[in-house]
Amino acid sequence: MNWHEATTSRKLDHLRICSEEDIEAGSSGFSDIRIVHAALPECDMDGVDLSCHFLGHSLATPLFIAAMTGGHPDTTDVNRRLARAAEKAGCAIGVGSQRAALERPDLAGSFKVVRKEAPTAFIAANIGAVQLREYGTGWAEKAVSMIDADCVAVHLNFLQEAIQPEGDRDAAGCLGAIEELCSDASVPVIVKETGSGISRETARLLWNAGVKAIDIGGHGGTSWAKIEGIREGEKNEPPLTRLGDDFIDWGIPTVVSLIEVRETGGPVIATGGVRSGVDIAKALALGADMAGMALPLLAPAMKGDSALACAIDHIHRQLKAAMFLSGAATLRDMRRVRTYITGDTRMMIQKYD
Amino acid sequence: MNWHEATTSRKLDHLRICSEEDIEAGSSGFSDIRIVHAALPECDMDGVDLSCHFLGHSLATPLFIAAMTGGHPDTTDVNRRLARAAEKAGCAIGVGSQRAALERPDLAGSFKVVRKEAPTAFIAANIGAVQLREYGTGWAEKAVSMIDADCVAVHLNFLQEAIQPEGDRDAAGCLGAIEELCSDASVPVIVKETGSGISRETARLLWNAGVKAIDIGGHGGTSWAKIEGIREGEKNEPPLTRLGDDFIDWGIPTVVSLIEVRETGGPVIATGGVRSGVDIAKALALGADMAGMALPLLAPAMKGDSALACAIDHIHRQLKAAMFLSGAATLRDMRRVRTYITGDTRMMIQKYD
Amino acid sequence: MNWHEATTSRKLDHLRICSEEDIEAGSSGFSDIRIVHAALPECDMDGVDLSCHFLGHSLATPLFIAAMTGGHPDTTDVNRRLARAAEKAGCAIGVGSQRAALERPDLAGSFKVVRKEAPTAFIAANIGAVQLREYGTGWAEKAVSMIDADCVAVHLNFLQEAIQPEGDRDAAGCLGAIEELCSDASVPVIVKETGSGISRETARLLWNAGVKAIDIGGHGGTSWAKIEGIREGEKNEPPLTRLGDDFIDWGIPTVVSLIEVRETGGPVIATGGVRSGVDIAKALALGADMAGMALPLLAPAMKGDSALACAIDHIHRQLKAAMFLSGAATLRDMRRVRTYITGDTRMMIQKYD
Amino acid sequence: MNWHEATTSRKLDHLRICSEEDIEAGSSGFSDIRIVHAALPECDMDGVDLSCHFLGHSLATPLFIAAMTGGHPDTTDVNRRLARAAEKAGCAIGVGSQRAALERPDLAGSFKVVRKEAPTAFIAANIGAVQLREYGTGWAEKAVSMIDADCVAVHLNFLQEAIQPEGDRDAAGCLGAIEELCSDASVPVIVKETGSGISRETARLLWNAGVKAIDIGGHGGTSWAKIEGIREGEKNEPPLTRLGDDFIDWGIPTVVSLIEVRETGGPVIATGGVRSGVDIAKALALGADMAGMALPLLAPAMKGDSALACAIDHIHRQLKAAMFLSGAATLRDMRRVRTYITGDTRMMIQKYD
Ligand SMILES: Cc1cc2nc3c(=O)[nH]c(=O)nc-3n(C[C@H](O)[C@H](O)[C@H](O)COP(=O)(O)O)c2cc1C
Ligand SMILES: Cc1cc2nc3c(=O)[nH]c(=O)nc-3n(C[C@H](O)[C@H](O)[C@H](O)COP(=O)(O)O)c2cc1C
Ligand SMILES: Cc1cc2nc3c(=O)[nH]c(=O)nc-3n(C[C@H](O)[C@H](O)[C@H](O)COP(=O)(O)O)c2cc1C
Ligand SMILES: Cc1cc2nc3c(=O)[nH]c(=O)nc-3n(C[C@H](O)[C@H](O)[C@H](O)COP(=O)(O)O)c2cc1C
Repeated sequence: MNWHEATTSRKLDHLRICSEEDIEAGSSGFSDIRIVHAALPECDMDGVDLSCHFLGHSLATPLFIAAMTGGHPDTTDVNRRLARAAEKAGCAIGVGSQRAALERPDLAGSFKVVRKEAPTAFIAANIGAVQLREYGTGWAEKAVSMIDADCVAVHLNFLQEAIQPEGDRDAAGCLGAIEELCSDASVPVIVKETGSGISRETARLLWNAGVKAIDIGGHGGTSWAKIEGIREGEKNEPPLTRLGDDFIDWGIPTVVSLIEVRETGGPVIATGGVRSGVDIAKALALGADMAGMALPLLAPAMKGDSALACAIDHIHRQLKAAMFLSGAATLRDMRRVRTYITGDTRMMIQKYD
Repeated sequence: MNWHEATTSRKLDHLRICSEEDIEAGSSGFSDIRIVHAALPECDMDGVDLSCHFLGHSLATPLFIAAMTGGHPDTTDVNRRLARAAEKAGCAIGVGSQRAALERPDLAGSFKVVRKEAPTAFIAANIGAVQLREYGTGWAEKAVSMIDADCVAVHLNFLQEAIQPEGDRDAAGCLGAIEELCSDASVPVIVKETGSGISRETARLLWNAGVKAIDIGGHGGTSWAKIEGIREGEKNEPPLTRLGDDFIDWGIPTVVSLIEVRETGGPVIATGGVRSGVDIAKALALGADMAGMALPLLAPAMKGDSALACAIDHIHRQLKAAMFLSGAATLRDMRRVRTYITGDTRMMIQKYD
Repeated sequence: MNWHEATTSRKLDHLRICSEEDIEAGSSGFSDIRIVHAALPECDMDGVDLSCHFLGHSLATPLFIAAMTGGHPDTTDVNRRLARAAEKAGCAIGVGSQRAALERPDLAGSFKVVRKEAPTAFIAANIGAVQLREYGTGWAEKAVSMIDADCVAVHLNFLQEAIQPEGDRDAAGCLGAIEELCSDASVPVIVKETGSGISRETARLLWNAGVKAIDIGGHGGTSWAKIEGIREGEKNEPPLTRLGDDFIDWGIPTVVSLIEVRETGGPVIATGGVRSGVDIAKALALGADMAGMALPLLAPAMKGDSALACAIDHIHRQLKAAMFLSGAATLRDMRRVRTYITGDTRMMIQKYD
Repeated sequence: MNWHEATTSRKLDHLRICSEEDIEAGSSGFSDIRIVHAALPECDMDGVDLSCHFLGHSLATPLFIAAMTGGHPDTTDVNRRLARAAEKAGCAIGVGSQRAALERPDLAGSFKVVRKEAPTAFIAANIGAVQLREYGTGWAEKAVSMIDADCVAVHLNFLQEAIQPEGDRDAAGCLGAIEELCSDASVPVIVKETGSGISRETARLLWNAGVKAIDIGGHGGTSWAKIEGIREGEKNEPPLTRLGDDFIDWGIPTVVSLIEVRETGGPVIATGGVRSGVDIAKALALGADMAGMALPLLAPAMKGDSALACAIDHIHRQLKAAMFLSGAATLRDMRRVRTYITGDTRMMIQKYD
C-alpha cells in the first residue's frame, strides 16, 4: 500500500472505500479447508485456552489486529478504538504505515493514541520496505519509539506500488535493508505482505535475512488491486492507463502461502481473508502461530467501541467453539488437528508427475 | 442435540422446524458415489435378501430408524407410529434422548410406547454422553429398562452443545464414562454422532473403549447448526451472539466418515443424509453394516401409519432394485460391490504427496 | 427394455416418448475427452477410409444403427427407412427386440422388412437375455432366420426390468443361457447393454462365456429410467410406487465402460450417448471397434428417407473431419490417437492410494 | 484459414466478423495458471528489460503481432497501422497469408506497406502449407522477397480447411514440403498453427524437419470453427452441411500445447487467446520465447494509430508489472518463475496410473 502519499487525505479515501465498497477479491482458500471434527473433544469449551507466546511475549489470543490506519487526524478515532479493544481483549495490534507521521511529526498523534489506549498490548510499528531502504534503520527506530512498539513490521506492497501511477517501483535493495534492520533493530522484525502472499522462496530469503516472524498477507481478502481499480474508476482515468483490474487475480492465496511458508520456518501470522474464528482455527491447524484480521474489524471500529468489542468477542467465541469441536484445549493442540484439503488449494499444494 | 431442556416443549419446537423447514446442509457425499452396474446380475430381484445380523440379533433389513423423539406427551403418537412400522418391517429403531423421562418419570410413556408397539423389534435406548458422565452406568441402565432396549446408544452432539447458549460444553471425561459403561452395561453399547461425523481417530478411541458399534452420524443430512440458526432467528437474538450459521459447514461428510471408521473396525451404522434405498446400497458397498435414517421418516410418521409404511416400503424397493442391479443377492454380496468415487469425497479420502 | 409386453402397442408409446420428450440423462463422458489435434495430418480428408472388419464382415463404416424397433405394424415404416439407409451407407444395423414377432408370427413383417430393404447389410437379430434363458437357443435361431441375420444380439436391460412393475426381475441363469447360445448358435453372439453399461467384471464373464463382441450400451444417452419415469407420470401412478426417477443416475458412463471393457478384450461397440461423428472418433481413439447410435437416428427415420440419409451423411462427414484432424487415414490409425481425459471420467478411471 | 480464396473480398468478411462478433471459443488455459508472487522483487519495475533474441535478431519485446491480413486493397490501412506500431514498439510482426498477392501481383501493395512502414522490424512472411506443397520453395521465396521478410511462417489451418466446403483437404506431403523449405530457404522457417495447437508429436516432426521455431497457435482464442459457423449461418446453409459448430471445441488449449511443445525443443511462440501482458508473463513462465496476439490488436488497428499504440503500451505495462511482481528483471528470469497449475489444464498435462 502506498500509505505514504504527500497528502494524507488519501488515507481517508481508503478507509471510506474499504468500509463502503466490496473490496475483497479471489479466494483465500479457507473454504477448501475442512477441520476433522472431534466427536469426543474430551475438554471443556469454557476452559479452552487461547493464550500463546509470540516473539517472547505472552498473548491472550492468537488474533492479531492487522495494520490499518493512522497518519491523518481523522483516523485517530479508529485507532483509539482498535487500541482499546486490543488492550481489553489482549490482542496484538499493528498500526498503519507510519510514514506520514515520520515525515510530518504533527501527524504522530493518530499513532501515539494506540500505545496510550493500549498500554500493555503487543504493538507492531509499521514501515514500508522502500522507505526502510531509503532512510535506514534509524527511520524504523523512530517508528518504534513513536508508539513504544514491541516489534516493527516492514510491509511489502509492491502490487499496489506497481499499479499506482505514482508508486515506488524500485524494489532493489529492500532485502539488504531488511537484513541490516534485523541485525541492528532494538525490537524483533516482522515482514508482512499486504494481500499477495509470501512464497516458499521469498520466505527462505526472509528467514536468512534474520526476520523473526512472517505475516503472509495472502490473496483472497482485502484486494488493493480492487481498491485501486475503484479509485481509478472514480477518477475517470482512461481505461488503458489503469492496471488495477488487470491484477485482481494476482497473488498467492492465503492458505497456499501459509502452507508454503510454514514448511520453511516460523513463527507465521496468517492474514488475508481471515473472516471468522473458524478461519483462525483452520489457519492454526495448518500451522499458523497467529492470525491477522483487518477489514472485518474496520466497520465495527468506525462504528464504536462496543460494536468492536462485540465483533472481537464473537470471533473468539467462534474460535473457542471450533477448537472445542476439534478436541483442542490449547493452541498447541489445535496445531496438530488434521484437516481435509480440496479444490484449487489442493491442486496448488500438491506436486505432480 | 440438547434433547434435555428443562422444558420438554422444545422437543416440539424441533419436530415442528424439522418437518416444516429445510434443515439439511452440506453434502453427505452420496452423490459422489456411483455403484458399478452389474449388467448380468445372475440373481432374482424378488429373492434379494435384506436380512442381516447386528449385535447378535437377526434383523429383516439394514434400515435403522434413527433416534428422533420422545419426552413430551405430544411426541407419543410419532413414536407409536415409528414403532409400529419398525415392528412390521423388521427395522431396528432408536428412541430420542431419554433424559427428560429419566428426570421426570411421568414423561416415560412417550418412550415406553415404542416397546409396546414393537415387541420384537431391536430397540436402542438413547442417552447423552454428558448425562452418562454425570450420572453413570445406572442412568443408562434405567434408560434401557424403561423400554426394554436391546442396546444403548450414547449420543455425541457437541456441535449443538457448543452452539446453544445453554449447552453443556464440558466434554471432558465422556470417553471414560463410555469405557465404564461398556464394561458394565447389560446390553451392547453403541456410540452415535448426530450430524458431524466420526473421524478415524475418534473411532479408534471408541473401539478401544469397548463400544460394540459406531453410528457415524455424518455431515450432509439434518443439520443441528442450521436448526439452531433458525431458532436463533425466530428468537431475534442479536447476530453476534449466534453461532449456528457459522457452523453450518462443520463436520465430516457421511461418506468420508464411513470410509474412515470402516477402516478401523466395525460394525458401522451409516447415518446422516441417507435419503433413499440407493444411498443405503452405496453405504453398504462402502462397508456399512446398517444405515440409519431420521429426517425422511419424520414427515410420514407425523402423517400416519400408512404413509410411514409406504415410505419404508419404497426405500426397501429402491434398496432391492439397487442390490439386484449390483448383482448382490445378499447384504454380504453388496458389501463387495465396486464403486466409483469422484468429487470432493475423492479428494478427502485420497492421500497426497 | 421390456420390449416384449403382451400388447405391442407399448412400442408405439416408446417411439412417441423418445421422439417427443427429452429422454437423455447423465453424461456419457464424451465431453471429458479431447482428441489430440494433428496440425499436420499428412493425409487426404477425402481419402479417409471408414471401412472396417467386424465379426468376419467388411463394413463401409463403424457406425452401427443400434437396435430400436419392430413388433407392431406401425413400426414397419421406421424399420424400412433405417434398413434402406443402412444398405445405402453400408452401416451395420440392429433390429429391436423380436420377442413380439416370435410369439405372434403375424408381427414378423415389421422385422423382415429390414432384410428386404437391406439385402447386403450386416444385420443383428435381437432377443432378451431372459427370453433366451426361458426358450433356449432355438428361440434365438428363429430370430436369426426371421431376418436372415448375420449375428444375434442378446440385450441386457435389467434396469428397465427392475423399474417396471411387470418387469422380469429374475436374472439368474442368463449367463449360462448365453454360454450355451455361444457354443451352439449358427451366427456370432453379441451381448449388448441398453443404457447402464458393462463393467470390467461383467465383460470378463461374457468373454469367458464365448461372446464374440460386446456392445457396452453405457449411461449418458437414452435413459430407460427416464422414459419409464415419464410413463409412470403419464399414468398418474402414486409417487411411492415409482422407481424410474430414483434410478436416473444409475449406470456406468459410456466412456468409462468403454475403457474398462476394452482392457478385457474385444471387439467392442460403443453405444450410449454417441451424438456425432466427433464422438465416434473419440470412441475409436479409446479403443472401440464400432460405435452405435439409436436416438439421434430415430427422429430423422420417422421423418423420411432423405432426412435419415442426410443425418447419416453428416455424421460421416463429422467423423471424416475428426479423423483427418487426428491425422488418421484409417480406423486403425484412429485407434492409436492420443486423447486428453478430464473431469469425472478421469476420476472414475484413475486409481488412487 | 483459407486466406486464399479466389475472391479476396472474403478477407473483408473475416475482418468484419472478427471485429464485430464474439469469435472466441474454449479456454486457452491461462486462467488455470497463477504466477507465484515475489513479495520482494529485488528489481526496478522501470528497469524491467523486455528485450530478447529471436532467430538471430534482437527484439525490444516478446510481443509478436500475429499474422492477420493483407490481400485486398481495403486491408492496406490495417496493415499500415500494425506495421507502424510494430516499428515504434519494436514488436515482431507477421502478415496475413500472401497467397492472393502471389497469385495476383497487383494485390501485393497491401503487404508491401508493412515493410515500408516498419523498415527495421522483424517481419514474418506467411504462406499456407498446402500452397507450399503445390508450388515449392520458390513460392515461399517470393513471399519473403515481397516484403523483405526476416523469416517465413508456414501456417497450418487444416481445421478451417476441413470445415469449409471449398477447403483444401489434402494434407499429404506438407511435412516433406516444409522439410525441403527448411533446407533451401534463405530465411529461417517458422511453422504456425492458427487456433488448434501443436501436439508434442507434431512438434517432434517439425523440429526433425528443420523448422527454426514453432508458433503453437493453440485453442482458446480466435476460433475459425466459430467464424465459419457464423458465415455458414449468414449464408443460410442447411444445418446438416455445416461443420463449424461441431468443431468449436476441437483443438489443444494454448497452455497445454505450449507445455508439450516446450518439452520437445524451441524456440516457441505462444499464440491463441493471449489477452494481456499478464498472459504473456504466464506464457514466458511456462517456457515460451515469444507470445503472439492477433484478435486483441485488430479492433484498435481498425480504429487508428493512436488507439493501437495505446493498446500495445498497455500490454507492455501489464507485462512489466507482472514481471516485476514475479521478481523477474529480464525475460530470462521470467522463464524461471514458478507457477501454480489447476483445473482442466492440470489434468491434461498430468499423467495418471
Ligand atoms: C483500510 C486498510 C488499510 C491498510 N493499511 C495498511 C498499512 O498501512 N500497512 C500495512 O502493512 N498493511 C495495511 N493494510 C493491510 C492489512 O494489514 C492486511 O494485510 C490486509 O488487509 C489483509 O487482511 P484482510 O483481508 O483481513 O483485510 C491495510 C488494510 C486495510 C483494509
Ligand atoms: C427431529 C430430530 C430429532 C433428533 N433427536 C435425536 C436424539 O434425541 N438423540 C439422538 O441421538 N439423535 C437425534 N437425532 C439425530 C438422528 O438420530 C440422526 O443422527 C441425524 O438426524 C442424521 O440423520 P438424517 O440426516 O437422516 O436426519 C434427531 C434427528 C431429528 C431429525
Ligand atoms: C426407441 C428405442 C427403442 C429401443 N429398443 C431396443 C430394443 O428393442 N432392443 C435393444 O437391444 N435395445 C433397444 N434400444 C437401445 C438402443 O439400442 C441403445 O442401446 C440405447 O438407446 C443407447 O443409445 P442412444 O443413447 O444412442 O440412444 C432402444 C432405444 C431406443 C431409443
Ligand atoms: C482476422 C484474422 C486473420 C488471420 N489471418 C491469418 C493468416 O492469414 N495467416 C495466419 O497464419 N494466421 C492468421 N490468423 C491467425 C492468427 O495469426 C492467430 O494464430 C490466431 O488468431 C490466434 O490468436 P488470437 O487468439 O490472439 O487471435 C488470423 C487471425 C485473425 C483474427
